[in-house]
Amino acid sequence: MARSLDEFRSYRTRMNDRIAEIDHLGIKRFFNLDAAAYKDGALDGKTKELIGLAASCVLRCNDCIDYHLIQCVDLGCTDGEIVDTLNVALIVGGSIFIPHMRHAVETLDALRTERSADSIRKDNTP
Amino acid sequence: MARSLDEFRSYRTRMNDRIAEIDHLGIKRFFNLDAAAYKDGALDGKTKELIGLAASCVLRCNDCIDYHLIQCVDLGCTDGEIVDTLNVALIVGGSIFIPHMRHAVETLDALRTERSADSIRKDNTP
Amino acid sequence: MARSLDEFRSYRTRMNDRIAEIDHLGIKRFFNLDAAAYKDGALDGKTKELIGLAASCVLRCNDCIDYHLIQCVDLGCTDGEIVDTLNVALIVGGSIFIPHMRHAVETLDALRTERSADSIRKDNTP
Amino acid sequence: MARSLDEFRSYRTRMNDRIAEIDHLGIKRFFNLDAAAYKDGALDGKTKELIGLAASCVLRCNDCIDYHLIQCVDLGCTDGEIVDTLNVALIVGGSIFIPHMRHAVETLDALRTERSADSIRKDNTP
Amino acid sequence: MARSLDEFRSYRTRMNDRIAEIDHLGIKRFFNLDAAAYKDGALDGKTKELIGLAASCVLRCNDCIDYHLIQCVDLGCTDGEIVDTLNVALIVGGSIFIPHMRHAVETLDALRTERSADSIRKDNTP
Amino acid sequence: MARSLDEFRSYRTRMNDRIAEIDHLGIKRFFNLDAAAYKDGALDGKTKELIGLAASCVLRCNDCIDYHLIQCVDLGCTDGEIVDTLNVALIVGGSIFIPHMRHAVETLDALRTERSADSIRKDNTP
Repeated sequence: MARSLDEFRSYRTRMNDRIAEIDHLGIKRFFNLDAAAYKDGALDGKTKELIGLAASCVLRCNDCIDYHLIQCVDLGCTDGEIVDTLNVALIVGGSIFIPHMRHAVETLDALRTERSADSIRKDNTP
Repeated sequence: MARSLDEFRSYRTRMNDRIAEIDHLGIKRFFNLDAAAYKDGALDGKTKELIGLAASCVLRCNDCIDYHLIQCVDLGCTDGEIVDTLNVALIVGGSIFIPHMRHAVETLDALRTERSADSIRKDNTP
Repeated sequence: MARSLDEFRSYRTRMNDRIAEIDHLGIKRFFNLDAAAYKDGALDGKTKELIGLAASCVLRCNDCIDYHLIQCVDLGCTDGEIVDTLNVALIVGGSIFIPHMRHAVETLDALRTERSADSIRKDNTP
Repeated sequence: MARSLDEFRSYRTRMNDRIAEIDHLGIKRFFNLDAAAYKDGALDGKTKELIGLAASCVLRCNDCIDYHLIQCVDLGCTDGEIVDTLNVALIVGGSIFIPHMRHAVETLDALRTERSADSIRKDNTP
Repeated sequence: MARSLDEFRSYRTRMNDRIAEIDHLGIKRFFNLDAAAYKDGALDGKTKELIGLAASCVLRCNDCIDYHLIQCVDLGCTDGEIVDTLNVALIVGGSIFIPHMRHAVETLDALRTERSADSIRKDNTP
Repeated sequence: MARSLDEFRSYRTRMNDRIAEIDHLGIKRFFNLDAAAYKDGALDGKTKELIGLAASCVLRCNDCIDYHLIQCVDLGCTDGEIVDTLNVALIVGGSIFIPHMRHAVETLDALRTERSADSIRKDNTP
């Protein structure tokens, strides 16, 4: 992976803070609406994140794919659920999605490694 | 609506039959893969149809939106679940999706009318 | 033109009203943000409408093109300004935009005819 | 088909003439470059039209698909060559292309009917 | 930023020179048309660059965003004008544009730093 | 070039292997269909690769462009044929394709250098 998950997270936070600092009312409201769209509603947050992942896949945006994968894993999606979502995206979006599928699988593997390191660390706490 | 649901269904069936008749192995296999992608798996068919709907929304294809709405309604999705999906698509895809959202809501209304006509017809059966 | 300007306007109003009736908070807020984005700010409303027109052109959405053309003409854009915008969109977006350019010019002609009918009507008022 | 081949041809010619009349130097030059791109070169015109067809398919523009299909048939492409091109477009572009594939096959059938009517008419000339 | 402004400029110049060297008439003419599209006309160059920026934003091309930002800053656009343009692009293009908005703001900051270094250097000339 | 041809090839192979390992039937079948689409048929493999290249260009995917360029060069396409394909993509897809054209020409140059190193090595075999 060209860029680690932590590099992605810190770049994202730093630039989102910088955008907030610009203090454009329309942009700030859009960011709030964006966050609100994935909260539990008629659909639960987990399903909405899978939907957001699929939308990011067919629109072929690696940063958006990484962001939604992080959310999916945090909300407890299984690998099977995520791979089924990637498969629908592959059928709808075609082979032009394949390079992004490679990226998505690489990110998912990195997230699982991170999680497993986390749980090992927790196991070791005396 | 420029075209009724029945016109859409019969045009779709007629042309899919015509494409099948061409008998191109790659195309036939793709159509099979496409159908298989929405079957119950790690995710159930209903969730996959909502994902397919969202993907069709952000890629802005009215015929695909209509097709997935028909499937969603057939599989028992509520209006709330469908509208939440449209909302995620609106946030991800932006205002360029709005004309397709108008189309989607019109189709959903037509599907509900059709269903309610169905149930009235059933109620009246002696 | 497949559909008159008045048909477009009444369909758009009717379906936007229907969407408002659904009363989804996220969707309603998005529609408000959308309207606000074209108000005078650091850039005046007219320039923002030309920008919205160009964005609609390269994303190839005829309904969005029609909407922004109506706004551009209402705000006093000249044909020269609009055609320069279409030219930038043609260069950025390529020949795939040409069918939408045909649509845009047809709509612009219809808007000018409407305007000139308006001014003739006003001249005739006793 | 919502619109006959002749309606497409006459609308296209009428609006291209109208655009030429606007006399914008950049737009006129683009139209010339566009025409020149499909002339025989390192690749022959027929291969370039198949390439233009595939590009129009994955960018999902029905009018562009119709235009390139007319050119492909005029330059002697076989149904097999055209269907192979549609298949590559289907793989690259995914199921979102399917509604446009239906349109493409309908147009191709109409073009073959037209051709066969032509040849019958020629056979009947005394 | 993964790549400095100077790296972008030198890569762009080097590869445009390489493309010119290939000496393909159609490609050379397209590059000329592209340059001409942003010259003063019915719209001034500055407005055209903002339009080009918005088009690049909604089509989500970081290199095109960087190029038009350089032009916008060179032609004297204020931060307010540029941010208003990004806001229209965000509304039209949706959250899928956000990673590119982060990139755009980072580039704009780098351009302002460059400019201020320039003016400090000028102040120091004896 | 940010990434050498060999880095691209090894990353692609490694991640495709990882995706195969996931063993999702739909995804595996899609990869097979994808490979089959470029085999000799009514159109020969070389023409199909040029078509795949053009589709990748207008959809603006650098990894897909690189992959099809490798195939085109392996199947004996001349620079003239490839550049004609890039020109059609430029006309259809517009200036937003230009950064990807720079990438494509850089990759093509790297492929020719690789080939010429190959043939020098072969000449030197005793």
